[in-house]
Amino acid sequence: MKAYHICMNVRKLKKIIEVAGGKSPADLVIRNCRIVDPISQTVSEGSIGVYDGFIIGIGDYEGKRVVDGEGCFAVAGLIDSHVHIESSMCTPEAYGSLVVPMGTTCVIADPHEICNVRGVSGLRFMMNSSERTPLKVKFMIPSCVPATEFEDSGAVLDSEKIEELIGEPKILGLGEMMNSTGVINCNEEVLEKITSAINKSKIIDGHGPMLKGKSLNAYRVSGVLTDHECSTPEEVRDRLKRGMYVLLREGSAARNLANLLEAVNDGNSRRCAMCSDDKHPEDIIANGHINHNLKIAVREGVNVFSAIAMATINAAECYKLKNTGLIAPGYMADIVLFKDLKDFEAKMVFINGEPVAKDGKALFPLVNRVDKAVTHSVNIKPVTSSDLKIPLKKDMVRVIGLDKYSLNTVLQKRKVKIVQGCFEVSPEADIKKLFVIERHNATGKIGKALIENYGIRNGAIGTTIAHDSHNIIVSGDNDRDILAAIRELENAGGGITLVKDGTVIETLSLPIGGIMSDMDAFSVSKKMERMKKTAHEELNVSTDVDPFMTLSFLALPVIPSLKVTPRGLFDVDKFDFVPMEWEE
Amino acid sequence: MKAYHICMNVRKLKKIIEVAGGKSPADLVIRNCRIVDPISQTVSEGSIGVYDGFIIGIGDYEGKRVVDGEGCFAVAGLIDSHVHIESSMCTPEAYGSLVVPMGTTCVIADPHEICNVRGVSGLRFMMNSSERTPLKVKFMIPSCVPATEFEDSGAVLDSEKIEELIGEPKILGLGEMMNSTGVINCNEEVLEKITSAINKSKIIDGHGPMLKGKSLNAYRVSGVLTDHECSTPEEVRDRLKRGMYVLLREGSAARNLANLLEAVNDGNSRRCAMCSDDKHPEDIIANGHINHNLKIAVREGVNVFSAIAMATINAAECYKLKNTGLIAPGYMADIVLFKDLKDFEAKMVFINGEPVAKDGKALFPLVNRVDKAVTHSVNIKPVTSSDLKIPLKKDMVRVIGLDKYSLNTVLQKRKVKIVQGCFEVSPEADIKKLFVIERHNATGKIGKALIENYGIRNGAIGTTIAHDSHNIIVSGDNDRDILAAIRELENAGGGITLVKDGTVIETLSLPIGGIMSDMDAFSVSKKMERMKKTAHEELNVSTDVDPFMTLSFLALPVIPSLKVTPRGLFDVDKFDFVPMEWEE
Repeated sequence: MKAYHICMNVRKLKKIIEVAGGKSPADLVIRNCRIVDPISQTVSEGSIGVYDGFIIGIGDYEGKRVVDGEGCFAVAGLIDSHVHIESSMCTPEAYGSLVVPMGTTCVIADPHEICNVRGVSGLRFMMNSSERTPLKVKFMIPSCVPATEFEDSGAVLDSEKIEELIGEPKILGLGEMMNSTGVINCNEEVLEKITSAINKSKIIDGHGPMLKGKSLNAYRVSGVLTDHECSTPEEVRDRLKRGMYVLLREGSAARNLANLLEAVNDGNSRRCAMCSDDKHPEDIIANGHINHNLKIAVREGVNVFSAIAMATINAAECYKLKNTGLIAPGYMADIVLFKDLKDFEAKMVFINGEPVAKDGKALFPLVNRVDKAVTHSVNIKPVTSSDLKIPLKKDMVRVIGLDKYSLNTVLQKRKVKIVQGCFEVSPEADIKKLFVIERHNATGKIGKALIENYGIRNGAIGTTIAHDSHNIIVSGDNDRDILAAIRELENAGGGITLVKDGTVIETLSLPIGGIMSDMDAFSVSKKMERMKKTAHEELNVSTDVDPFMTLSFLALPVIPSLKVTPRGLFDVDKFDFVPMEWEE
Repeated sequence: MKAYHICMNVRKLKKIIEVAGGKSPADLVIRNCRIVDPISQTVSEGSIGVYDGFIIGIGDYEGKRVVDGEGCFAVAGLIDSHVHIESSMCTPEAYGSLVVPMGTTCVIADPHEICNVRGVSGLRFMMNSSERTPLKVKFMIPSCVPATEFEDSGAVLDSEKIEELIGEPKILGLGEMMNSTGVINCNEEVLEKITSAINKSKIIDGHGPMLKGKSLNAYRVSGVLTDHECSTPEEVRDRLKRGMYVLLREGSAARNLANLLEAVNDGNSRRCAMCSDDKHPEDIIANGHINHNLKIAVREGVNVFSAIAMATINAAECYKLKNTGLIAPGYMADIVLFKDLKDFEAKMVFINGEPVAKDGKALFPLVNRVDKAVTHSVNIKPVTSSDLKIPLKKDMVRVIGLDKYSLNTVLQKRKVKIVQGCFEVSPEADIKKLFVIERHNATGKIGKALIENYGIRNGAIGTTIAHDSHNIIVSGDNDRDILAAIRELENAGGGITLVKDGTVIETLSLPIGGIMSDMDAFSVSKKMERMKKTAHEELNVSTDVDPFMTLSFLALPVIPSLKVTPRGLFDVDKFDFVPMEWEE
């Protein structure tokens, strides 16, 4: 299933030419289609001939096998131009089973999360797992592991490792260069990584929110080709004017697409592609994947051909994917039959000419093999209840204020209750304890913080998904439940857990690096939905925050304003650690 | 001048980033420009900063050197996506001096002609010569040397040679695959050549006039990406629908552009590029080069941004030219300042950030070094007057009828005068002798024919430019002058010669392979213009034929209808040799 147009020989070429010439029958003919050509901007009725994984032509071909397209619209397989598969909490295999039936046939994956946990072993796991799904998974090597110097990740991918790996054929380039400051300020190690990519003629993905003017020029000339972090039409225009590709994002947290489309027109759309970046399984199940981006684009008035080009050929051109992205002779037979060009519901999906999905169901089995190299990733120094005390010299403190429906937090100045020199949860205020516990190398580092507006009562919630270093993050209103949550996560080898009144209510076990399940996406999604409900209903988590995602981003010290890592409270605006006590 | 973004190091990258960030001055700032962005489809006033051959940004930069753009339109350097430089009768160096001042900064050259004469030495000469001009010359290896099996070329580039050469970095791929029949019929040797290109990830240029339907599919699936031989809008559409690039041609003989533009729209134009294919020096001097294509396109109503994209970024994308084709940070500083976007007259040209032309004049010297490996290419067995006799068994014969202003010929059935068993020129009819003399390996092969409508009287005209094998081709109304022309060509080591009444009137010497001059383009053009005038006025060549180009195509056995090679008369419709005498 994974054949590519890489090693050609005369015998093989001969057969392809003969079939295309009509001299011998095709493997497959998909008849009765309305074939969409986003380049010529036409829809034409006809049949698609397929041989040896390639489209050999549109026309009156004979096939050993004939499939009725039922008048559906045939579009080239959709491409997610930038995704962290780990955000689906599924392995690439399980992810393939989820998104292929929606029409996605190729993704450009940046395994930033698993690499933060397990480095090269994480990358290898993702590559191996992706061999067991027909979904074509191409890789970018994460450029920023660890994401910042203020974190304790499980692994480091330094410039030497990058240089070693980046030449591999399945690796398309260097993943999103989040350290734009490092680039602009010419950090030697950052430039070494970039240089390796340039000299191997590989793509460099960007991540340059808010950059503009000369800073954006400086970032761009380093070799960065793409950006998926635009949140305003102006940012889109600014990047397109600099010869960059803009990857229009519609993820679970960052829903930028509709807003960005204002900047996209029939002229510049050739340098735009579609991506999801981070998308949760329940969101994909409910709304779709790249077909959802298409639906939004068309709904917002984008020319349907431009929209389809953004989801197919433009991404293929950007990432130099060979023979990919069009329904035309010589292209790989990655084909989706959509029922219409409005809702983009896939009737059938083909990859390399094989039927791989029908009516929303995958036609291939899900194996989901787990690899020891990425399991047993929770390695902590034993935590006792005394570790959970938060000593305070004064009662005026910094508190992480959760913002409604946002990953940003607010730095709050609050007066809290102190008992025996330590913070104590008080019934008058919704201020609870939060801990980030280093869990890769058992260093015993514990970052402590207080959060407001999480709402949790009579329990604790813990997770080993904590961007980007994925330490344990846990919050609760009492130490017993917090401790139980930590122990449960340790026993499960990572996951998400709910504890109430001293008892574990439910745990989603994430044995792969503590961030991915070994189940299928539907089971994960179902469990997540149920646990979310429990968190709100039984643990009283505020209805205007996501009980899990909110926690997962509290340790990421690049999003405003107050965060916490195993090393302590971090003020993102000051870009430095700060004490909990408020200075006068 | 020839620096490319190939070997990057941290020190160099650092400097580029610093300059782009405004922390240290640019090498050059071109201020007061109207910068054209064919992707964003905008024209914006501003300054372009350049450092180390790259554009580092558009904006308020300080430069060690400042050039006033005088309000001109700044466009990325123009790209000729398919050219046989030899058709200019100039070396790449001289060609560079001619076209760079017109705004061309890069050409994709297929040295098909010189390789037919001298094989790999011809290719090497072209590559070496191109190092001595700032014009960026990228090469395709000719795929069809010899062009047909009915010709006697000076060299053969077989599949083994192609395999040996195609991996070289300056070689972008396999040149126009003229043997479309060979492809479609799966000729082993042809497929070997194609396979080499595919396996080295190289481009394959097509040449598929009139192909359609399944034949075109078969041709396309072989890996052919481009076609520059379209002569109808339908052919353009057919190829674009097959995921191919169409190179829109405006040459000296084939002036297809205006006609083809009907098929080009804002959607599909991204897969179109501009080319000249074959263009004579006098034509380039009179009308321009790719800037002429732009002028025609805009005149014909093509959106100016689409037109510019076709002449720049589209070609760069098609041929995978790195960092080429836009005025944006990170792109090579190949920039043309046009006075307007209507006539596209270049005010200034920059290549890799260096000013290379101003007001139509090159700012660099022309060296024009000749290489022994490509000179002395006329090697014939001595020809005597008895060789020029045309014995005929009967007086009803096949005659090559010249068609007005066309490269096609007409097969004419004519009754001619026979004296002592041989053809004799008769004053009643304009039927003259024509000889094609093998001139590479002194085989003594002489093809004989009769031509009608050439008009020549009291003399002979000979040339060593005879597509595609470039043997000697000579026509005249008397043997003495024909013999003198042959001798002159032999002595000159190739060229074009006019003989009248036993005396050589003028010869354009073409010492390089018998097809290229060692002079500059302006001298060649002037001489050609004068000799053309002489041919018409003093040798009486019909005013409705080009005295030289007509001869040059009479030995090419792929253009209808009757041609002649050193092996004899060739009926292109029958695709076989035929006797001169008409069968009953």
